[in-house]
Amino acid sequence: MALLSKLTAIPPGIQTAEDYLAHAQPRLSPEVLHYLEGGSGKGISLKANLDAFDGVQLMSRPLTDVRCGHTRINLFGQNFEHPLLLAPIAYQRLFHDHGESVAAMAANAQTGQMVVSSLASQSLEEIIEAAGQPLWFQLYWQGDRPRTLRLLNRALSAGYNAVMFTVDAPVKQAVMALPDDVRAVNLESPLSQPPVQANQSLVFDGWMTQAPSWDDVAWLRDQIKVPLLVKGLLHTDDVANTLRLGCDGLVVSNHGGRVLDGVPTSLAVLPEIANMVAGKACLLFDSGIRRGQDAFKALALGADAVMIGRPYIWGLSVAGALGVAHVIRLMRDELEMTMALSGAATLADIKLSSLSDSALGR
Amino acid sequence: MALLSKLTAIPPGIQTAEDYLAHAQPRLSPEVLHYLEGGSGKGISLKANLDAFDGVQLMSRPLTDVRCGHTRINLFGQNFEHPLLLAPIAYQRLFHDHGESVAAMAANAQTGQMVVSSLASQSLEEIIEAAGQPLWFQLYWQGDRPRTLRLLNRALSAGYNAVMFTVDAPVKQAVMALPDDVRAVNLESPLSQPPVQANQSLVFDGWMTQAPSWDDVAWLRDQIKVPLLVKGLLHTDDVANTLRLGCDGLVVSNHGGRVLDGVPTSLAVLPEIANMVAGKACLLFDSGIRRGQDAFKALALGADAVMIGRPYIWGLSVAGALGVAHVIRLMRDELEMTMALSGAATLADIKLSSLSDSALGR
Amino acid sequence: MALLSKLTAIPPGIQTAEDYLAHAQPRLSPEVLHYLEGGSGKGISLKANLDAFDGVQLMSRPLTDVRCGHTRINLFGQNFEHPLLLAPIAYQRLFHDHGESVAAMAANAQTGQMVVSSLASQSLEEIIEAAGQPLWFQLYWQGDRPRTLRLLNRALSAGYNAVMFTVDAPVKQAVMALPDDVRAVNLESPLSQPPVQANQSLVFDGWMTQAPSWDDVAWLRDQIKVPLLVKGLLHTDDVANTLRLGCDGLVVSNHGGRVLDGVPTSLAVLPEIANMVAGKACLLFDSGIRRGQDAFKALALGADAVMIGRPYIWGLSVAGALGVAHVIRLMRDELEMTMALSGAATLADIKLSSLSDSALGR
Amino acid sequence: MALLSKLTAIPPGIQTAEDYLAHAQPRLSPEVLHYLEGGSGKGISLKANLDAFDGVQLMSRPLTDVRCGHTRINLFGQNFEHPLLLAPIAYQRLFHDHGESVAAMAANAQTGQMVVSSLASQSLEEIIEAAGQPLWFQLYWQGDRPRTLRLLNRALSAGYNAVMFTVDAPVKQAVMALPDDVRAVNLESPLSQPPVQANQSLVFDGWMTQAPSWDDVAWLRDQIKVPLLVKGLLHTDDVANTLRLGCDGLVVSNHGGRVLDGVPTSLAVLPEIANMVAGKACLLFDSGIRRGQDAFKALALGADAVMIGRPYIWGLSVAGALGVAHVIRLMRDELEMTMALSGAATLADIKLSSLSDSALGR
Repeated sequence: MALLSKLTAIPPGIQTAEDYLAHAQPRLSPEVLHYLEGGSGKGISLKANLDAFDGVQLMSRPLTDVRCGHTRINLFGQNFEHPLLLAPIAYQRLFHDHGESVAAMAANAQTGQMVVSSLASQSLEEIIEAAGQPLWFQLYWQGDRPRTLRLLNRALSAGYNAVMFTVDAPVKQAVMALPDDVRAVNLESPLSQPPVQANQSLVFDGWMTQAPSWDDVAWLRDQIKVPLLVKGLLHTDDVANTLRLGCDGLVVSNHGGRVLDGVPTSLAVLPEIANMVAGKACLLFDSGIRRGQDAFKALALGADAVMIGRPYIWGLSVAGALGVAHVIRLMRDELEMTMALSGAATLADIKLSSLSDSALGR
Repeated sequence: MALLSKLTAIPPGIQTAEDYLAHAQPRLSPEVLHYLEGGSGKGISLKANLDAFDGVQLMSRPLTDVRCGHTRINLFGQNFEHPLLLAPIAYQRLFHDHGESVAAMAANAQTGQMVVSSLASQSLEEIIEAAGQPLWFQLYWQGDRPRTLRLLNRALSAGYNAVMFTVDAPVKQAVMALPDDVRAVNLESPLSQPPVQANQSLVFDGWMTQAPSWDDVAWLRDQIKVPLLVKGLLHTDDVANTLRLGCDGLVVSNHGGRVLDGVPTSLAVLPEIANMVAGKACLLFDSGIRRGQDAFKALALGADAVMIGRPYIWGLSVAGALGVAHVIRLMRDELEMTMALSGAATLADIKLSSLSDSALGR
Repeated sequence: MALLSKLTAIPPGIQTAEDYLAHAQPRLSPEVLHYLEGGSGKGISLKANLDAFDGVQLMSRPLTDVRCGHTRINLFGQNFEHPLLLAPIAYQRLFHDHGESVAAMAANAQTGQMVVSSLASQSLEEIIEAAGQPLWFQLYWQGDRPRTLRLLNRALSAGYNAVMFTVDAPVKQAVMALPDDVRAVNLESPLSQPPVQANQSLVFDGWMTQAPSWDDVAWLRDQIKVPLLVKGLLHTDDVANTLRLGCDGLVVSNHGGRVLDGVPTSLAVLPEIANMVAGKACLLFDSGIRRGQDAFKALALGADAVMIGRPYIWGLSVAGALGVAHVIRLMRDELEMTMALSGAATLADIKLSSLSDSALGR
Repeated sequence: MALLSKLTAIPPGIQTAEDYLAHAQPRLSPEVLHYLEGGSGKGISLKANLDAFDGVQLMSRPLTDVRCGHTRINLFGQNFEHPLLLAPIAYQRLFHDHGESVAAMAANAQTGQMVVSSLASQSLEEIIEAAGQPLWFQLYWQGDRPRTLRLLNRALSAGYNAVMFTVDAPVKQAVMALPDDVRAVNLESPLSQPPVQANQSLVFDGWMTQAPSWDDVAWLRDQIKVPLLVKGLLHTDDVANTLRLGCDGLVVSNHGGRVLDGVPTSLAVLPEIANMVAGKACLLFDSGIRRGQDAFKALALGADAVMIGRPYIWGLSVAGALGVAHVIRLMRDELEMTMALSGAATLADIKLSSLSDSALGR
């Protein structure tokens, strides 16, 4: 069955980002769709990530004056119109011929930011040129320090001005067989399964010998001057370590339910982590944002900003830059409406007390 | 597909108000039905409003003498046979050619009361004439004080003897495209989206500049002598403000799940609000009443009276005044039966202790 | 569609009493089936009655010596082989041509007991003659004391040796239109809706004027020497009243979910009531028993014996006396097996501590 | 419909042990499949066993150094590469022509262990010969001591070097009618229903007279020198008794939901039992393991090792020894991956603190 081609206009009837999914489905092969939408294990975390937001209650606060409110935010000296960052997602040429460049253009057209994956399917230089402004770079450990440093330096030379180090997926997850023309073009060569002897463990004696450690985080911190964020933390001890090592930010994330199934949702651990971070570093939220209301809840529970993942890929798959920009705009509108009805004029007004008491288990 | 015409008799087999829904469906266009039944966002609050009642347990108290019991109530010096008010619902000519007049006649035939919407599709004067007695008027803020005052004065001149100011929907919600012959005939002109500049927010710089504030409530209180109720409160701080400003009553409501999705149900916040109001003002309950048993539960948790919404529109859509009157009667019968089996002879006998302990989390 | 005729043998493949339901369905008209299986209101209590048992956890206690165990019980000086009484169910000729007589025979063949309804469709004398031994009589209030006393005396004269006074259904519930040949043959005339004036309440000024009160219980206690049980209590205050008035027993029941929908399940209130009764009266459990495991749980939570309702009517509808006897035997076998695996050799060994701690919320 | 024949290779597309079930279904008759997959009663425990694992949350601990990790374990002086034992399952010739021998070979090829059932369908000697190394023997009580001792001595003579005494199924459960060529070949004769008199109980006066008691455990302990484990405990008092009698190990189990329905899951009672055992005996977990993640959770909650049941029978039914070995390998790989992502390099590193706090109800 032939796939439908991209649209050159926003499809009619779209009310929310999730409405793009139905339009994306006939435009992606079953394999690509499964790769995009799937979770690990039994899919418990994938589902829990979404359900978690339903368990947090908003509270309407009518009659509050919110005229001239806005959603502006400054992260590491950079100004954005809204706190909705595009998360790093690999191989975006699976979803659109012009891949990451298209999403980066849309992010910047909406005066936001995109984090480009180590596994981008376009060259880092090409993407940043298309964007027309600095982007952030997501780093996967490349098995050893020299190799990792070469990739990192390439990104910094290209103009990426923040580094987000993903640490929660040390073992390459099962992935679809990539088409011939889609690959991680910025890597020297893909990380392959290390050879093990017959009586050795593929996991412990193989993959995990290529995984980064806390020592590597400390080393990495010394290599770069740009902001360094660690992505993929759920445990407060790991947050404490990250702060101790002088990182500039961290991302609470369970990798969208794609790595270790059955861990807590990011939303469940966010309040305690926010309490620990307490402004000492930039705290981003990832995993499960589908609507502006979700972003409001994550901000109320302590995040400084959020990352959106699958939803912008739906927009990319349907209508390219237009689709991505529309997804961002829809979520921002929802965030603004939620703020207005909750009596919050700025992001700083979004607090724990913006939620219903019962959301806090009281 | 042609819509079925109205019935001139009560349809056979009706046991409860909800049975009218099946008869209403073939008599309404899909657009109108969707407009009536829909909720905002993911519909969480719409569903939670109904489910909340199932979580409150009744307690049978056999062998109590309830002979000569009744459901009579006095609100603001007005006597009604029962505590089931018709909630303000816009554009009732979508559901019946003669719209609000028909519902008002039925309300009064059942010796109850109706609150007529600012967005009524018939003239305020025509409706009150059809009713043959004073009605209550629901007020939407008209963007500024002069315009609001002109609408208010028109209602008071027409004989409306109480004002219910709805404050939880400052931004016009998405609504269906109205047919040519159905519109808000009592407004000078419909509120339109305020113009904003390219870099401004449609929400904060547009809609919210037309929203009322607490100062406007204080101003409104000074303009009128008739009872003033504020509708759309969920937070105790807002209830306290309302009491402080000298309002005569308030309506706990989440707007039937139609505005900010994901807020608490009215039932969840009712006990704490009732505790705060403590007889200092009239406390009405709105959002989710489908049966007389539901009314009993809201009264037990502290409401003085309740408002019913969608159910009477089902009756209106099926059999006009006869249908509305029947819906009210069915709910009153259910309320009486629940009272009798619970050992309550009058509304004053319906107390927290009328419920099962487990309803209170004990 | 013609109904299937009764079987003259136990149908193949029956493992539990519930398996009889599938066989009963084609043997009953839709109206009769709906009457038997239905609950009041939204059916919340009907479903909760069954679900409640799933929330109580058993605990296996292997290696306990239970040889020579048994399920024998003595109630009011009467010996039974098991604690599974047949509950009073009206109009049993709806389910079998020979109605209550058949069920009574089966109960006694299984060395148990049946409580015959005031609304029996066969004469009290005929039923007791078929049984060949004394039965218990269920009393509905007949609107006034003289009329009630005449019915009661008829039963006592016929040889019924215990009276179970049902108090939780003072208003006649909606019932199917009875066939011409099925009626409450033991009543002087059926209780009819009392006439009310136009401005009066059908409930408060009508039905409830015929309802019994606590004074009537006291009066009734004085009229009879045989054991008197009150059926239909859920509130501890009502239990206390019953004990104070000198009744010999009581039945915790929500009338199988057929009267006031949304009250607690019998199982939920049983522990607190058992604690209050503490052996001062006979405590029976009713509403929701479908298996011997359920009976075990009710006994562990404090009941002396249980009543089964719909399940024996399924047996009656399928295979008459044989079916009823089989249903009783299946449940007794399940009870015995549950006892054996739980380490209980006699009913006295079934205690709170026979359940898993988690069943008690610990 | 003819059954599909066994495969001689691993079927394509298998990702987890559970994927074997779909391949097993067309290779087993409906009766055999029902026997394998069924639970007792309403199947509450069968389902709860699986759901319980979803309620325990893992916690990712990235950046931990787990190079050279492994899953090795020593039980009673015997070394195994992993803690995944094959549970005793009766009549394995229902699933494969060469029955238990095939599973035993696979267990040992994977450097693990199998517990052979008293109800094996092949001779104990034949199975151990096929395995090529000592196995463990599961003992069912044979009604009396002499008969039990004869069976036990046969197993010990054949080289079985540990005895697991199953105590939670004293009454033979309903079982399918076995084909002519499948039977418990190692028993002198199958235990039959003991004769009872007409007024006696089949349960108490029949089956339970053949059941073992605590005295029999003490006697058994004296008969053998090899490790003795008691299987089928849920109550801490029974665990205490087992320890007191000097047993070497115990198996927390609800018999896979096949005996007393409605008891706690093994996982629910495991922490308290582990706390009591505290290393004084070997603690095995049984009932509900379907994935390596499940094994990780049971180990974190205190088990020393786990037993897998139905999953290896699926592998046996599909592809014989190859299938069983693959099922074991898949689960071990999942266990290793879960360990690596949780920061555990060895089984000793898997602790309560390896789980999310919320798993412990905090």
